[in-house]
Amino acid sequence: MKEITSVRNPSVQRLRELQKPRARREAGLFIADSVKMVREALSLSLCRTLAVEAGRTEEYAEWIERAEASGCEVLLVTRSVMEALSEAKTPQGVLCTVAVLPEPQTLSGSRLVALDGVQDPGNVGTILRTADAAGFDGALMGAGCADLYGAKTLRSTMGSVFRVPVKRTDDLAGELMAMKRRGYAVVATELGGEDFYAHCPHERCVLVIGSEGRGVSEAVRAVATHHLALPMRGGAESLNAAVAAGIMMYEMART
Amino acid sequence: MKEITSVRNPSVQRLRELQKPRARREAGLFIADSVKMVREALSLSLCRTLAVEAGRTEEYAEWIERAEASGCEVLLVTRSVMEALSEAKTPQGVLCTVAVLPEPQTLSGSRLVALDGVQDPGNVGTILRTADAAGFDGALMGAGCADLYGAKTLRSTMGSVFRVPVKRTDDLAGELMAMKRRGYAVVATELGGEDFYAHCPHERCVLVIGSEGRGVSEAVRAVATHHLALPMRGGAESLNAAVAAGIMMYEMART
Repeated sequence: MKEITSVRNPSVQRLRELQKPRARREAGLFIADSVKMVREALSLSLCRTLAVEAGRTEEYAEWIERAEASGCEVLLVTRSVMEALSEAKTPQGVLCTVAVLPEPQTLSGSRLVALDGVQDPGNVGTILRTADAAGFDGALMGAGCADLYGAKTLRSTMGSVFRVPVKRTDDLAGELMAMKRRGYAVVATELGGEDFYAHCPHERCVLVIGSEGRGVSEAVRAVATHHLALPMRGGAESLNAAVAAGIMMYEMART
Repeated sequence: MKEITSVRNPSVQRLRELQKPRARREAGLFIADSVKMVREALSLSLCRTLAVEAGRTEEYAEWIERAEASGCEVLLVTRSVMEALSEAKTPQGVLCTVAVLPEPQTLSGSRLVALDGVQDPGNVGTILRTADAAGFDGALMGAGCADLYGAKTLRSTMGSVFRVPVKRTDDLAGELMAMKRRGYAVVATELGGEDFYAHCPHERCVLVIGSEGRGVSEAVRAVATHHLALPMRGGAESLNAAVAAGIMMYEMART
Protein backbone atom coordinates (compact mmCIF):
# COMPACT_ATOMS: atom_id res chain seq x y z
CA MET A 1 0.00 0.00 0.00
CA LYS A 2 1.40 3.34 -1.10
CA GLU A 3 0.37 6.63 0.49
CA ILE A 4 0.07 9.57 -1.85
CA THR A 5 -0.56 13.16 -0.84
CA SER A 6 0.41 15.08 -3.99
CA VAL A 7 -1.35 15.30 -7.31
CA ARG A 8 2.13 15.62 -8.85
CA ASN A 9 3.02 12.08 -7.82
CA PRO A 10 3.89 10.04 -10.96
CA SER A 11 1.36 7.29 -10.18
CA VAL A 12 -1.35 9.91 -9.89
CA GLN A 13 -0.23 11.62 -13.11
CA ARG A 14 -0.37 8.26 -14.89
CA LEU A 15 -3.91 7.62 -13.66
CA ARG A 16 -5.09 11.13 -14.53
CA GLU A 17 -3.83 10.65 -18.06
CA LEU A 18 -6.47 7.94 -18.41
CA GLN A 19 -9.14 10.67 -18.46
CA LYS A 20 -8.08 11.16 -22.11
CA PRO A 21 -9.30 8.75 -24.83
CA ARG A 22 -5.89 8.50 -26.47
CA ALA A 23 -4.07 7.61 -23.25
CA ARG A 24 -6.73 4.97 -22.55
CA ARG A 25 -6.20 3.42 -25.97
CA GLU A 26 -2.43 3.41 -25.59
CA ALA A 27 -2.46 1.98 -22.07
CA GLY A 28 -5.34 -0.41 -22.70
CA LEU A 29 -6.85 0.76 -19.43
CA PHE A 30 -9.87 2.73 -18.26
CA ILE A 31 -11.05 4.09 -14.92
CA ALA A 32 -13.90 2.52 -12.98
CA ASP A 33 -15.08 5.52 -10.99
CA SER A 34 -17.92 4.46 -8.69
CA VAL A 35 -18.55 1.98 -5.90
CA LYS A 36 -20.68 -0.10 -8.26
CA MET A 37 -18.05 -0.21 -11.00
CA VAL A 38 -15.17 -0.99 -8.62
CA ARG A 39 -17.15 -3.82 -7.07
CA GLU A 40 -17.75 -5.36 -10.49
CA ALA A 41 -14.12 -4.91 -11.55
CA LEU A 42 -12.86 -6.62 -8.39
CA SER A 43 -15.32 -9.48 -8.60
CA LEU A 44 -14.24 -10.10 -12.21
CA SER A 45 -10.53 -9.79 -11.26
CA LEU A 46 -10.11 -6.96 -13.76
CA CYS A 47 -8.74 -4.34 -11.35
CA ARG A 48 -5.13 -3.22 -11.86
CA THR A 49 -4.68 -0.24 -9.56
CA LEU A 50 -7.07 0.50 -6.70
CA ALA A 51 -7.12 4.03 -5.24
CA VAL A 52 -8.85 4.63 -1.89
CA GLU A 53 -9.30 7.89 -0.03
CA ALA A 54 -7.21 7.81 3.15
CA GLY A 55 -10.11 8.54 5.52
CA ARG A 56 -12.24 5.71 4.09
CA THR A 57 -9.99 2.66 4.37
CA GLU A 58 -12.28 0.98 6.89
CA GLU A 59 -15.26 1.32 4.61
CA TYR A 60 -13.34 -0.33 1.77
CA ALA A 61 -11.13 -2.65 3.90
CA GLU A 62 -12.45 -5.82 2.25
CA TRP A 63 -11.70 -4.48 -1.23
CA ILE A 64 -8.19 -3.34 -0.27
CA GLU A 65 -7.47 -6.80 1.09
CA ARG A 66 -8.88 -8.44 -1.99
CA ALA A 67 -6.94 -6.15 -4.33
CA GLU A 68 -3.68 -6.76 -2.51
CA ALA A 69 -4.25 -10.52 -2.42
CA SER A 70 -4.68 -10.55 -6.19
CA GLY A 71 -1.57 -8.51 -6.83
CA CYS A 72 -3.16 -5.12 -7.62
CA GLU A 73 -1.34 -1.94 -6.80
CA VAL A 74 -3.17 -0.15 -3.95
CA LEU A 75 -2.87 3.61 -3.52
CA LEU A 76 -3.99 5.43 -0.39
CA VAL A 77 -4.69 9.00 -1.49
CA THR A 78 -5.75 12.26 0.11
CA ARG A 79 -9.12 13.76 -0.70
CA SER A 80 -7.60 16.36 -3.01
CA VAL A 81 -5.79 13.63 -4.95
CA MET A 82 -9.05 11.65 -5.21
CA GLU A 83 -10.80 14.76 -6.52
CA ALA A 84 -8.11 15.10 -9.18
CA LEU A 85 -8.43 11.44 -10.19
CA SER A 86 -12.22 11.33 -10.33
CA GLU A 87 -14.39 12.96 -12.97
CA ALA A 88 -17.52 12.44 -10.86
CA LYS A 89 -19.29 15.42 -9.32
CA THR A 90 -19.13 13.74 -5.92
CA PRO A 91 -16.23 11.25 -5.87
CA GLN A 92 -17.15 8.16 -3.87
CA GLY A 93 -13.73 7.75 -2.26
CA VAL A 94 -12.72 4.75 -4.35
CA LEU A 95 -11.84 4.05 -7.97
CA CYS A 96 -9.69 1.64 -9.92
CA THR A 97 -8.09 1.12 -13.29
CA VAL A 98 -9.39 -1.73 -15.39
CA ALA A 99 -7.89 -3.50 -18.40
CA VAL A 100 -9.96 -2.66 -21.49
CA LEU A 101 -12.34 -5.56 -22.01
CA PRO A 102 -11.53 -8.06 -24.76
CA GLU A 103 -13.80 -7.56 -27.78
CA PRO A 104 -15.48 -10.51 -29.47
CA GLN A 105 -14.46 -11.19 -33.10
CA THR A 106 -18.06 -11.98 -33.90
CA LEU A 107 -21.19 -11.27 -31.94
CA SER A 108 -23.84 -13.93 -31.71
CA GLY A 109 -27.09 -14.69 -29.89
CA SER A 110 -30.72 -13.91 -30.51
CA ARG A 111 -30.81 -10.14 -30.17
CA LEU A 112 -28.18 -7.45 -30.66
CA VAL A 113 -28.15 -3.68 -30.70
CA ALA A 114 -25.98 -1.52 -33.00
CA LEU A 115 -25.10 2.12 -32.37
CA ASP A 116 -24.68 4.15 -35.55
CA GLY A 117 -23.06 7.42 -34.48
CA VAL A 118 -24.80 7.83 -31.11
CA GLN A 119 -22.84 10.83 -29.85
CA ASP A 120 -24.13 11.51 -26.37
CA PRO A 121 -22.17 9.50 -23.79
CA GLY A 122 -25.23 9.29 -21.53
CA ASN A 123 -27.24 7.77 -24.39
CA VAL A 124 -24.51 5.23 -25.23
CA GLY A 125 -24.17 4.15 -21.60
CA THR A 126 -27.91 4.03 -21.03
CA ILE A 127 -28.48 1.93 -24.15
CA LEU A 128 -25.91 -0.63 -22.92
CA ARG A 129 -27.57 -0.67 -19.50
CA THR A 130 -30.97 -1.27 -21.11
CA ALA A 131 -29.58 -3.91 -23.47
CA ASP A 132 -28.30 -5.75 -20.40
CA ALA A 133 -31.68 -5.51 -18.63
CA ALA A 134 -33.55 -6.64 -21.77
CA GLY A 135 -31.28 -9.68 -22.07
CA PHE A 136 -29.69 -8.61 -25.34
CA ASP A 137 -26.59 -10.57 -26.29
CA GLY A 138 -24.23 -7.83 -27.40
CA ALA A 139 -23.69 -4.46 -29.02
CA LEU A 140 -21.96 -3.16 -32.13
CA MET A 141 -20.57 0.36 -31.95
CA GLY A 142 -19.86 2.14 -35.22
CA ALA A 143 -17.78 5.23 -35.94
CA GLY A 144 -18.83 8.55 -34.43
CA CYS A 145 -20.17 7.10 -31.17
CA ALA A 146 -19.19 8.52 -27.78
CA ASP A 147 -16.16 6.75 -26.30
CA LEU A 148 -17.22 3.55 -24.54
CA TYR A 149 -14.60 4.10 -21.84
CA GLY A 150 -15.24 7.80 -21.14
CA ALA A 151 -16.34 8.65 -17.60
CA LYS A 152 -19.88 9.72 -18.55
CA THR A 153 -20.52 6.68 -20.73
CA LEU A 154 -19.26 4.29 -18.06
CA ARG A 155 -21.31 5.96 -15.33
CA SER A 156 -24.47 5.64 -17.42
CA THR A 157 -23.88 1.92 -18.01
CA MET A 158 -24.19 1.36 -14.23
CA GLY A 159 -21.83 -1.61 -14.58
CA SER A 160 -23.43 -3.15 -17.66
CA VAL A 161 -20.21 -2.44 -19.59
CA PHE A 162 -18.84 -5.50 -17.80
CA ARG A 163 -21.70 -7.72 -18.90
CA VAL A 164 -22.68 -6.79 -22.46
CA PRO A 165 -20.12 -7.86 -25.11
CA VAL A 166 -19.30 -4.84 -27.27
CA LYS A 167 -17.58 -4.91 -30.63
CA ARG A 168 -16.35 -1.57 -31.92
CA THR A 169 -15.94 -1.12 -35.65
CA ASP A 170 -15.21 1.56 -38.23
CA ASP A 171 -17.30 -0.30 -40.79
CA LEU A 172 -20.71 -0.76 -39.21
CA ALA A 173 -22.44 -1.26 -42.57
CA GLY A 174 -19.98 -4.05 -43.43
CA GLU A 175 -20.49 -5.73 -40.05
CA LEU A 176 -24.26 -5.57 -40.47
CA MET A 177 -23.99 -6.97 -43.98
CA ALA A 178 -22.09 -9.95 -42.54
CA MET A 179 -24.78 -10.36 -39.84
CA LYS A 180 -27.45 -10.31 -42.54
CA ARG A 181 -25.64 -13.09 -44.41
CA ARG A 182 -25.68 -15.08 -41.19
CA GLY A 183 -29.47 -14.80 -41.16
CA TYR A 184 -29.99 -11.80 -38.91
CA ALA A 185 -32.74 -9.25 -39.54
CA VAL A 186 -31.28 -5.74 -39.48
CA VAL A 187 -33.80 -3.21 -38.13
CA ALA A 188 -33.17 0.44 -38.95
CA THR A 189 -35.33 2.93 -37.11
CA GLU A 190 -36.42 5.98 -39.05
CA LEU A 191 -39.13 8.61 -39.05
CA GLY A 192 -41.81 7.56 -41.50
CA GLY A 193 -40.86 3.88 -41.32
CA GLU A 194 -43.41 1.07 -41.05
CA ASP A 195 -45.18 0.45 -37.74
CA PHE A 196 -42.65 -1.01 -35.33
CA TYR A 197 -45.12 -3.12 -33.41
CA ALA A 198 -46.57 -4.77 -36.51
CA HIS A 199 -43.23 -5.68 -38.07
CA CYS A 200 -40.52 -6.00 -35.42
CA PRO A 201 -38.66 -9.31 -35.41
CA HIS A 202 -38.11 -11.06 -32.06
CA GLU A 203 -35.34 -13.50 -32.93
CA ARG A 204 -31.98 -13.25 -34.67
CA CYS A 205 -32.18 -9.52 -35.11
CA VAL A 206 -30.00 -6.44 -34.79
CA LEU A 207 -31.68 -3.20 -33.77
CA VAL A 208 -29.82 -0.17 -35.16
CA ILE A 209 -30.04 3.11 -33.24
CA GLY A 210 -29.02 6.16 -35.27
CA SER A 211 -27.37 9.38 -34.19
CA GLU A 212 -29.36 11.95 -32.19
CA GLY A 213 -29.25 14.53 -34.97
CA ARG A 214 -29.23 12.67 -38.24
CA GLY A 215 -30.61 9.22 -37.46
CA VAL A 216 -29.34 6.05 -39.17
CA SER A 217 -26.65 6.63 -41.82
CA GLU A 218 -27.31 6.04 -45.52
CA ALA A 219 -24.86 3.12 -45.72
CA VAL A 220 -26.58 1.31 -42.86
CA ARG A 221 -30.09 2.07 -44.16
CA ALA A 222 -29.10 0.39 -47.42
CA VAL A 223 -28.18 -2.81 -45.57
CA ALA A 224 -31.26 -2.92 -43.33
CA THR A 225 -33.94 -5.57 -43.82
CA HIS A 226 -36.55 -3.56 -41.88
CA HIS A 227 -37.26 0.19 -41.75
CA LEU A 228 -39.48 0.80 -38.75
CA ALA A 229 -40.77 3.65 -36.63
CA LEU A 230 -42.50 3.93 -33.27
CA PRO A 231 -45.86 5.70 -33.36
CA MET A 232 -45.74 9.45 -32.56
CA ARG A 233 -49.12 10.32 -31.13
CA GLY A 234 -48.80 13.83 -29.71
CA GLY A 235 -46.92 16.79 -31.07
CA ALA A 236 -43.45 15.36 -30.36
CA GLU A 237 -41.35 14.88 -33.48
CA SER A 238 -39.11 12.20 -32.08
CA LEU A 239 -38.00 10.38 -28.95
CA ASN A 240 -34.71 10.57 -27.10
CA ALA A 241 -32.38 7.93 -28.63
CA ALA A 242 -31.98 5.94 -25.41
CA VAL A 243 -35.72 5.97 -24.73
CA ALA A 244 -36.54 4.81 -28.27
CA ALA A 245 -33.90 2.09 -27.96
CA GLY A 246 -35.40 0.99 -24.64
CA ILE A 247 -38.96 0.78 -25.94
CA MET A 248 -37.86 -1.24 -28.96
CA MET A 249 -35.43 -3.55 -27.17
CA TYR A 250 -38.00 -4.45 -24.53
CA GLU A 251 -40.58 -5.15 -27.23
CA MET A 252 -38.16 -7.29 -29.26
CA ALA A 253 -37.30 -9.28 -26.15
CA ARG A 254 -40.95 -10.28 -25.64
CA THR A 255 -41.42 -13.72 -27.09
CA MET B 1 -35.93 46.98 -31.44
CA LYS B 2 -33.29 47.74 -28.83
CA GLU B 3 -29.58 47.15 -29.42
CA ILE B 4 -27.63 45.91 -26.44
CA THR B 5 -23.88 45.48 -26.25
CA SER B 6 -23.26 45.21 -22.51
CA VAL B 7 -24.09 42.38 -20.12
CA ARG B 8 -24.59 45.09 -17.50
CA ASN B 9 -27.61 46.48 -19.34
CA PRO B 10 -30.66 46.29 -17.02
CA SER B 11 -32.77 44.35 -19.55
CA VAL B 12 -30.01 41.78 -19.79
CA GLN B 13 -29.63 41.62 -16.01
CA ARG B 14 -33.36 41.03 -15.69
CA LEU B 15 -33.27 38.18 -18.22
CA ARG B 16 -30.22 36.59 -16.62
CA GLU B 17 -31.98 36.57 -13.26
CA LEU B 18 -34.44 34.11 -14.82
CA GLN B 19 -31.72 31.47 -14.75
CA LYS B 20 -32.59 31.16 -11.04
CA PRO B 21 -35.68 29.19 -9.94
CA ARG B 22 -36.75 31.82 -7.42
CA ALA B 23 -36.62 34.68 -9.92
CA ARG B 24 -38.63 32.58 -12.37
CA ARG B 25 -41.30 31.96 -9.76
CA GLU B 26 -41.49 35.62 -8.80
CA ALA B 27 -41.61 36.90 -12.38
CA GLY B 28 -43.84 34.09 -13.66
CA LEU B 29 -41.48 33.78 -16.61
CA PHE B 30 -38.99 31.25 -17.98
CA ILE B 31 -36.46 31.25 -20.80
CA ALA B 32 -37.04 29.33 -24.02
CA ASP B 33 -33.44 28.76 -25.09
CA SER B 34 -33.41 26.97 -28.44
CA VAL B 35 -34.70 27.48 -31.96
CA LYS B 36 -37.28 24.78 -31.40
CA MET B 37 -38.56 26.28 -28.15
CA VAL B 38 -38.69 29.84 -29.50
CA ARG B 39 -40.64 28.67 -32.55
CA GLU B 40 -43.22 27.00 -30.30
CA ALA B 41 -43.45 30.01 -27.98
CA LEU B 42 -44.04 32.37 -30.89
CA SER B 43 -46.60 30.16 -32.58
CA LEU B 44 -48.51 29.94 -29.29
CA SER B 45 -48.19 33.72 -28.72
CA LEU B 46 -46.46 33.10 -25.40
CA CYS B 47 -43.28 35.07 -26.10
CA ARG B 48 -42.69 38.22 -24.01
CA THR B 49 -39.12 39.30 -24.81
CA LEU B 50 -37.25 38.03 -27.86
CA ALA B 51 -33.44 38.30 -27.90
CA VAL B 52 -31.59 37.80 -31.19
CA GLU B 53 -27.84 37.86 -31.81
CA ALA B 54 -26.98 40.92 -33.90
CA GLY B 55 -25.24 38.98 -36.69
CA ARG B 56 -28.20 36.66 -37.19
CA THR B 57 -31.13 39.00 -37.74
CA GLU B 58 -31.64 37.83 -41.32
CA GLU B 59 -31.90 34.22 -40.22
CA TYR B 60 -34.57 35.15 -37.67
CA ALA B 61 -36.16 38.07 -39.58
CA GLU B 62 -39.60 36.44 -39.72
CA TRP B 63 -39.62 35.84 -35.98
CA ILE B 64 -38.51 39.39 -35.20
CA GLU B 65 -41.33 40.73 -37.35
CA ARG B 66 -43.82 38.42 -35.74
CA ALA B 67 -42.64 39.30 -32.23
CA GLU B 68 -42.84 43.04 -32.91
CA ALA B 69 -46.26 42.71 -34.53
CA SER B 70 -47.60 41.01 -31.40
CA GLY B 71 -46.13 43.60 -29.06
CA CYS B 72 -43.13 41.66 -27.71
CA GLU B 73 -40.00 43.47 -26.67
CA VAL B 74 -37.20 42.65 -29.13
CA LEU B 75 -33.56 42.89 -28.09
CA LEU B 76 -30.69 42.82 -30.54
CA VAL B 77 -27.68 41.61 -28.58
CA THR B 78 -24.00 41.00 -29.18
CA ARG B 79 -22.61 37.49 -29.10
CA SER B 80 -21.11 37.97 -25.65
CA VAL B 81 -24.47 39.15 -24.30
CA MET B 82 -26.15 36.12 -25.90
CA GLU B 83 -23.60 33.85 -24.25
CA ALA B 84 -24.40 35.43 -20.91
CA LEU B 85 -28.14 34.98 -21.43
CA SER B 86 -28.00 31.39 -22.65
CA GLU B 87 -27.24 28.36 -20.50
CA ALA B 88 -26.75 26.17 -23.60
CA LYS B 89 -23.27 24.91 -24.48
CA THR B 90 -23.67 26.33 -27.97
CA PRO B 91 -26.20 29.19 -27.92
CA GLN B 92 -28.33 29.19 -31.06
CA GLY B 93 -28.42 32.97 -31.43
CA VAL B 94 -32.02 33.33 -30.33
CA LEU B 95 -34.00 32.94 -27.12
CA CYS B 96 -37.10 34.39 -25.54
CA THR B 97 -38.91 34.74 -22.26
CA VAL B 98 -42.20 32.95 -21.89
CA ALA B 99 -45.01 33.36 -19.37
CA VAL B 100 -45.16 30.33 -17.09
CA LEU B 101 -47.87 28.07 -18.48
CA PRO B 102 -51.23 27.96 -16.69
CA GLU B 103 -51.62 24.75 -14.69
CA PRO B 104 -54.82 22.74 -14.84
CA GLN B 105 -56.79 22.44 -11.58
CA THR B 106 -57.54 18.85 -12.41
CA LEU B 107 -55.94 16.57 -14.93
CA SER B 108 -58.12 14.32 -17.00
CA GLY B 109 -57.91 11.97 -19.97
CA SER B 110 -57.11 8.30 -20.43
CA ARG B 111 -53.47 8.15 -19.42
CA LEU B 112 -51.35 10.29 -17.12
CA VAL B 113 -47.84 10.10 -15.74
CA ALA B 114 -46.80 11.22 -12.24
CA LEU B 115 -43.26 12.08 -11.19
CA ASP B 116 -42.50 11.24 -7.57
CA GLY B 117 -39.20 12.97 -6.77
CA VAL B 118 -37.51 12.51 -10.16
CA GLN B 119 -34.41 14.63 -9.51
CA ASP B 120 -32.47 14.64 -12.75
CA PRO B 121 -33.62 17.48 -15.03
CA GLY B 122 -32.77 15.41 -18.11
CA ASN B 123 -35.03 12.62 -16.86
CA VAL B 124 -37.91 15.00 -16.08
CA GLY B 125 -37.70 16.65 -19.50
CA THR B 126 -37.29 13.35 -21.34
CA ILE B 127 -40.31 11.84 -19.56
CA LEU B 128 -42.47 14.80 -20.65
CA ARG B 129 -41.19 14.45 -24.21
CA THR B 130 -42.02 10.74 -24.20
CA ALA B 131 -45.43 11.34 -22.61
CA ASP B 132 -46.19 13.71 -25.48
CA ALA B 133 -45.07 11.17 -28.10
CA ALA B 134 -47.06 8.38 -26.43
CA GLY B 135 -50.19 10.53 -26.46
CA PHE B 136 -50.45 10.82 -22.68
CA ASP B 137 -52.88 13.48 -21.48
CA GLY B 138 -50.89 15.15 -18.72
CA ALA B 139 -48.35 14.90 -15.95
CA LEU B 140 -48.36 15.37 -12.19
CA MET B 141 -45.11 16.55 -10.61
CA GLY B 142 -44.65 15.97 -6.88
CA ALA B 143 -42.16 17.50 -4.44
CA GLY B 144 -38.46 16.87 -4.95
CA CYS B 145 -38.58 16.86 -8.75
CA ALA B 146 -36.15 18.90 -10.86
CA ASP B 147 -37.53 22.34 -11.73
CA LEU B 148 -39.83 22.13 -14.75
CA TYR B 149 -38.58 25.52 -15.99
CA GLY B 150 -34.84 24.96 -15.52
CA ALA B 151 -32.72 25.12 -18.67
CA LYS B 152 -31.77 21.44 -18.70
CA THR B 153 -35.31 20.23 -18.11
CA LEU B 154 -36.72 22.47 -20.83
CA ARG B 155 -34.04 21.45 -23.32
CA SER B 156 -34.82 17.76 -22.71
CA THR B 157 -38.54 18.29 -23.31
CA MET B 158 -37.75 19.36 -26.90
CA GLY B 159 -40.81 21.60 -26.81
CA SER B 160 -43.20 19.09 -25.25
CA VAL B 161 -43.47 21.38 -22.20
CA PHE B 162 -45.82 23.46 -24.37
CA ARG B 163 -48.04 20.50 -25.19
CA VAL B 164 -48.32 18.29 -22.11
CA PRO B 165 -50.45 19.81 -19.30
CA VAL B 166 -48.44 19.65 -16.08
CA LYS B 167 -49.82 20.08 -12.57
CA ARG B 168 -47.26 20.61 -9.84
CA THR B 169 -48.16 19.64 -6.30
CA ASP B 170 -46.63 19.28 -2.85
CA ASP B 171 -49.08 16.51 -2.03
CA LEU B 172 -48.68 13.90 -4.74
CA ALA B 173 -50.17 11.12 -2.61
CA GLY B 174 -53.26 13.27 -1.98
CA GLU B 175 -53.62 14.06 -5.69
CA LEU B 176 -53.32 10.38 -6.57
CA MET B 177 -55.87 9.47 -3.92
CA ALA B 178 -58.28 11.90 -5.59
CA MET B 179 -57.53 10.36 -9.00
CA LYS B 180 -58.19 6.91 -7.57
CA ARG B 181 -61.59 8.07 -6.29
CA ARG B 182 -62.32 9.30 -9.82
CA GLY B 183 -61.75 5.76 -11.07
CA TYR B 184 -58.12 5.91 -12.14
CA ALA B 185 -55.74 3.00 -11.64
CA VAL B 186 -52.54 4.20 -9.95
CA VAL B 187 -49.52 2.19 -11.09
CA ALA B 188 -46.45 2.30 -8.86
CA THR B 189 -43.32 0.80 -10.33
CA GLU B 190 -41.04 -1.04 -7.93
CA LEU B 191 -38.37 -3.71 -7.96
CA GLY B 192 -39.99 -7.02 -7.13
CA GLY B 193 -43.43 -5.88 -8.27
CA GLU B 194 -45.75 -8.03 -10.38
CA ASP B 195 -45.05 -8.49 -14.08
CA PHE B 196 -45.77 -5.20 -15.82
CA TYR B 197 -46.88 -6.73 -19.09
CA ALA B 198 -49.37 -9.10 -17.49
CA HIS B 199 -51.04 -6.49 -15.29
CA CYS B 200 -50.64 -2.99 -16.78
CA PRO B 201 -53.88 -1.07 -17.32
CA HIS B 202 -54.39 0.70 -20.65
CA GLU B 203 -57.20 3.12 -19.79
CA ARG B 204 -57.85 5.62 -17.01
CA CYS B 205 -54.49 5.09 -15.38
CA VAL B 206 -51.68 7.09 -13.82
CA LEU B 207 -48.17 5.70 -14.13
CA VAL B 208 -45.97 6.80 -11.21
CA ILE B 209 -42.23 7.11 -11.79
CA GLY B 210 -40.16 7.18 -8.60
CA SER B 211 -36.91 8.94 -7.83
CA GLU B 212 -33.67 7.67 -9.34
CA GLY B 213 -32.22 6.67 -5.99
CA ARG B 214 -35.11 5.63 -3.80
CA GLY B 215 -37.94 4.77 -6.17
CA VAL B 216 -41.58 5.51 -5.38
CA SER B 217 -42.20 7.06 -1.93
CA GLU B 218 -43.99 5.16 0.85
CA ALA B 219 -46.97 7.54 0.84
CA VAL B 220 -47.54 7.04 -2.88
CA ARG B 221 -47.01 3.27 -2.71
CA ALA B 222 -49.77 3.12 -0.12
CA VAL B 223 -52.20 4.80 -2.54
CA ALA B 224 -51.26 2.71 -5.60
CA THR B 225 -53.70 0.17 -7.02
CA HIS B 226 -50.94 -1.69 -8.92
CA HIS B 227 -47.33 -2.48 -7.94
CA LEU B 228 -45.53 -3.54 -11.10
CA ALA B 229 -42.02 -4.13 -12.40
CA LEU B 230 -40.45 -4.57 -15.80
CA PRO B 231 -38.55 -7.84 -16.27
CA MET B 232 -34.78 -7.62 -15.60
CA ARG B 233 -33.20 -10.31 -17.70
CA GLY B 234 -29.45 -9.70 -17.61
CA GLY B 235 -27.31 -8.59 -14.70
CA ALA B 236 -28.66 -5.04 -14.62
CA GLU B 237 -30.38 -4.14 -11.36
CA SER B 238 -32.57 -1.41 -12.74
CA LEU B 239 -33.29 0.84 -15.70
CA ASN B 240 -32.75 4.55 -16.11
CA ALA B 241 -35.93 6.31 -14.90
CA ALA B 242 -36.71 7.93 -18.26
CA VAL B 243 -36.13 4.67 -20.15
CA ALA B 244 -38.36 2.71 -17.77
CA ALA B 245 -41.03 5.41 -18.08
CA GLY B 246 -40.77 5.25 -21.87
CA ILE B 247 -41.13 1.48 -22.07
CA MET B 248 -44.15 1.53 -19.78
CA MET B 249 -45.90 4.56 -21.30
CA TYR B 250 -45.62 3.13 -24.80
CA GLU B 251 -46.99 -0.20 -23.59
CA MET B 252 -49.89 1.44 -21.75
CA ALA B 253 -50.75 3.45 -24.87
CA ARG B 254 -51.21 0.29 -26.93
CA THR B 255 -54.87 -0.50 -27.09
